[in-house]
Amino acid sequence: MEFPFTRIKGGVGAPRGFLTSAVGCGIKNPEVKRLDLALIYSDAPCTSAGTFTTNRVKAAPVRVSQAHLRKGSLRAIVANSGNANACTGVQGIHDAKAMADAVAGPLDLNRSETGVCSTGVIGLPMPMARIEPAFPELVAGLGRRNGGAVAQAIMTSDTRPKELAISFELGGYRVRLGGCVKGAGMISPSMATMLCFITTDAAVPKDALQKAVLEAVEESFNRITIDGDMSTNDTVLVMANGKSGMPPIRRNGPRCRQFRNALRWLMGELAKAIVRDGERVTKFVTVDVRGARTYLDAKKVAEAVCKSALVKSSWNGGDPNWGRVLHAVGYSRARIREELVDIRYDGLPACLGGLQADTPMPKLREVAARPEFTIEIDLNQGKADYQMYSSDLSPEYIDFNRSEYAYWKQARKDGLV
Amino acid sequence: MEFPFTRIKGGVGAPRGFLTSAVGCGIKNPEVKRLDLALIYSDAPCTSAGTFTTNRVKAAPVRVSQAHLRKGSLRAIVANSGNANACTGVQGIHDAKAMADAVAGPLDLNRSETGVCSTGVIGLPMPMARIEPAFPELVAGLGRRNGGAVAQAIMTSDTRPKELAISFELGGYRVRLGGCVKGAGMISPSMATMLCFITTDAAVPKDALQKAVLEAVEESFNRITIDGDMSTNDTVLVMANGKSGMPPIRRNGPRCRQFRNALRWLMGELAKAIVRDGERVTKFVTVDVRGARTYLDAKKVAEAVCKSALVKSSWNGGDPNWGRVLHAVGYSRARIREELVDIRYDGLPACLGGLQADTPMPKLREVAARPEFTIEIDLNQGKADYQMYSSDLSPEYIDFNRSEYAYWKQARKDGLV
Repeated sequence: MEFPFTRIKGGVGAPRGFLTSAVGCGIKNPEVKRLDLALIYSDAPCTSAGTFTTNRVKAAPVRVSQAHLRKGSLRAIVANSGNANACTGVQGIHDAKAMADAVAGPLDLNRSETGVCSTGVIGLPMPMARIEPAFPELVAGLGRRNGGAVAQAIMTSDTRPKELAISFELGGYRVRLGGCVKGAGMISPSMATMLCFITTDAAVPKDALQKAVLEAVEESFNRITIDGDMSTNDTVLVMANGKSGMPPIRRNGPRCRQFRNALRWLMGELAKAIVRDGERVTKFVTVDVRGARTYLDAKKVAEAVCKSALVKSSWNGGDPNWGRVLHAVGYSRARIREELVDIRYDGLPACLGGLQADTPMPKLREVAARPEFTIEIDLNQGKADYQMYSSDLSPEYIDFNRSEYAYWKQARKDGLV
Repeated sequence: MEFPFTRIKGGVGAPRGFLTSAVGCGIKNPEVKRLDLALIYSDAPCTSAGTFTTNRVKAAPVRVSQAHLRKGSLRAIVANSGNANACTGVQGIHDAKAMADAVAGPLDLNRSETGVCSTGVIGLPMPMARIEPAFPELVAGLGRRNGGAVAQAIMTSDTRPKELAISFELGGYRVRLGGCVKGAGMISPSMATMLCFITTDAAVPKDALQKAVLEAVEESFNRITIDGDMSTNDTVLVMANGKSGMPPIRRNGPRCRQFRNALRWLMGELAKAIVRDGERVTKFVTVDVRGARTYLDAKKVAEAVCKSALVKSSWNGGDPNWGRVLHAVGYSRARIREELVDIRYDGLPACLGGLQADTPMPKLREVAARPEFTIEIDLNQGKADYQMYSSDLSPEYIDFNRSEYAYWKQARKDGLV
């Protein structure tokens, strides 16, 4: 397919009519005032859609945003990093609602027109005493910008802001689509500790938008894994304000398909950006399963391979260890026959019919040493396929995740615990 | 329950009538002649039973031993470390059969009376040229010993041999039960890269023995996890030769229950020994789930917690991070209600009703700093429970598992690849 989009500068601020702002209020640590509170606002009414973590332990802002989306559409999103407001009980719900109120009031919105998102440490109360005084500055700061500050303010252990925007023709109108994400840890299929905000000036009816979002999430964020953990806070929120001037797209019409393709492409790129910026990640590995009897079999195989600690360790070592890949294929619970399985590294056969192929080992090691490569697993049993994007697991990942005691110490200083 | 057994010296060689032997033939590396080939033999006919990996990719010796057990009972077990003989196709089956033949011949057994086990690297052919010449010495070396050399010869990345033997009264007869295991990596529920051999001089009919083994494996080896990977070679083999002189126990009689209790206890201890000797492990953590609506819910919660890379990283750091435990409980797919969950570390509440409890953090950190502790997760929804034994995940584990290239280089030197 010819690339039908034009990349444009910025992220959530790129589409017409979206204003953004971000401030630093020292949520994680009052002495370090990095950006940690962000606001996105549309100056015209929107339709909106979203998907949320399937974890049964849901953070307070997830519950609040879900309720707001059920009521109608969002026109603003307020988000913070540094504290996830998860496992915080009734107080957490109060705090999430207070955050929505604090921006809805001055913007003359109903509380339910505001989405709320938090990301950071779990189980500590929100330091509202530091957050609340920052809202006037946050709202006053709204302006036409490309949105980079928002991408920055939602970062936790991310090493760089991740945003992207495109423009494309839709029925004779030039439409813009922009987005930003944060990821880094707890990245797993069926959503991750990841936040994704997407804005567009296309005019998309709410039901068509929701359908497009579900479909695009299934093919992007649900196909990435870093450490196999699934967060309490995962949220994707999309707002469409129609400011391109186009008439609303018709559900299932050709323009609807075009919009869905654009959304799918954008989310796919943002999802891959999350893997590339995973905690202490050194490799980006595409696992491409083919020839499965069913879609579900293909998916089981891809997930087992992408979640295996041993396979991920070998990626970290640049070792083309097809035996470990095959053993994960075997325990995936998919219907496979060992003697039919082929495994290739960037097209070079490592294993054919379940046995070592005769590609010279140095050539395979060359591939596995690359920062990005594809492992193709052909089960040779049918026509179903499934792709996933994954990373290695590094000693540094574990070092990095050994302790969150510093957060607790700060919460104690704040008198919250 | 009063401890009804007496610990005795040794392992698989402790019961009457079992002879053992082990030699070093340099399977992994011809220059390092550590013990790597072992033999267990009963001088009287046995009943026997076994369980095998549920991985669909099964090593050749697993397929061969399964077939032998289906035909009748084993009287000898030959096992090697250094090469798993997995993903080796038809040649692998030939090699496994050749190993059985090589001991069955001189011992005057049918081939199908010999179990075969291999553990080590996957996907490289067996260096039979080094193994075959060692068989005469292996068989000639059979003798009454406690079995420590067998426990040593099956080690791969294990740091110490793991064996245990007990004696106890069974209907007026003194019976002995001995066993050894190897574990270390790829340890996961539903079996692990683990081999376990158990011998007894009790007289147990084959069907009763098989039932006892299945039950004991379910409560021991299926409840441990180190890295969540499941191997191609897992095997538990049990031989009973009746040399205690007792009359055969009756199925479901009181002596059968006593024997089952003893087997369960022995396998439980051996399973825990595997976790304690896991690859680069620094903590032994018991996860005790209670108050679940069903057994399956309790099991899902225990497995999710024990497999979470983030939870395991926090154990490595001695961090009593109940938020990460709760988030894994949430994504376990068990039916849980966040606001009902209590989490305790060695009895000290860290989380009550889904919220931080008021136990002072230093006290919780004291517990999490211990080399062994129990995390009790009470779902407060029912009466089902499930226990698992797990370990931390260390940066050193990943370092250790980054590359198996050295194995491949040796296989190349051997002209096998």
